[in-house]
Amino acid sequence: MEYPDAIRALIDHFMRFPGIGKKTAERYAFYVIDRFDKDDVIGFMEALHRVSEDIVPCQTCGNLTDKPVCSICEDTNRDRRKILVVEESKDVLVVEKTGTYDGLYHVLGGAIAPSEGVGPEDLRIRALLERLKDEAHQEVILALNLSEEGETTALYINRLLQKTDLLVTRIAYGLPAGGNLSYADDMTLFKALEGRKKY
Amino acid sequence: MEYPDAIRALIDHFMRFPGIGKKTAERYAFYVIDRFDKDDVIGFMEALHRVSEDIVPCQTCGNLTDKPVCSICEDTNRDRRKILVVEESKDVLVVEKTGTYDGLYHVLGGAIAPSEGVGPEDLRIRALLERLKDEAHQEVILALNLSEEGETTALYINRLLQKTDLLVTRIAYGLPAGGNLSYADDMTLFKALEGRKKY
Repeated sequence: MEYPDAIRALIDHFMRFPGIGKKTAERYAFYVIDRFDKDDVIGFMEALHRVSEDIVPCQTCGNLTDKPVCSICEDTNRDRRKILVVEESKDVLVVEKTGTYDGLYHVLGGAIAPSEGVGPEDLRIRALLERLKDEAHQEVILALNLSEEGETTALYINRLLQKTDLLVTRIAYGLPAGGNLSYADDMTLFKALEGRKKY
Repeated sequence: MEYPDAIRALIDHFMRFPGIGKKTAERYAFYVIDRFDKDDVIGFMEALHRVSEDIVPCQTCGNLTDKPVCSICEDTNRDRRKILVVEESKDVLVVEKTGTYDGLYHVLGGAIAPSEGVGPEDLRIRALLERLKDEAHQEVILALNLSEEGETTALYINRLLQKTDLLVTRIAYGLPAGGNLSYADDMTLFKALEGRKKY
């Protein structure tokens, strides 16, 4: 016996998510069928639709937001002297959760990866340079992943900023090699932030 | 910093699934944002919509299907003398996967649970009795979960069928107490089927 097409299709969609195998995807699909009423299904569909329609990069920093400018950029209590540069929007949340950083952010939208055809022009590096013309900003803290791509990107940005008066720093090597910023624990991130040093 | 509403809503929907905590739900939501393009999101929405619209209980046995009558009931090669009674549609798939059963099924849609307000009339028991008027059927195999509800339901059905010529059997107690039919391994289910005895 085969699954009806509609069930098969839903299982396939769940299997696209990281860490979800066939058994778990089947469980989720049946959970939708057994436990979700029409309103639940519509609610889930709307939530998917809304993130794809409403969520955009902040015009200033690239962080995901549902407004033109994100709440961090609009917060006048943040220390505008510091800009923390990260690869992905979710990295912003990871740092925010530690509660140890009060500056601004800049989300690149990835890292330089020639093998995957991602060059500097594909990232929000030009937008970063534009932002940095504002003299309120004094320090650029590079908080990229400790990977080949992250290293390359950090090196590239540091070189671009060499001739400016900006202080360019990096978070300390508290991240394990090959580690992903998004999955670091608060303490590791705290130490990495505290131990940052001039590039 | 808070998540934008749309992201928050999607995380909440993922958290409704069994075994998905906040961290995993966040990961899935960002996976949608980062890795799903518009077509992917639409495909996922359509899959959800289709299961809620197209998937219905088989008119004969109650198994989930996208046709009026499911593929098992329509399969003339199945042994119509045997009807295996299960609680949920997913139990049908679990038994089918073992490849050791060639009869028909009947899905009750749950089990009698007075404490949750589920009585016999809420299950497809009347439909079962109607089906059994067809003399092609000779044996009713009760394959309900080994729980208070399953026991109660088995007892109830057995009592209803006492005065008929039907052979009423139960799968053997190969299932561990408190165990759920859906998560039993093939061998356990095979033994349970083989060792079935007259109720």
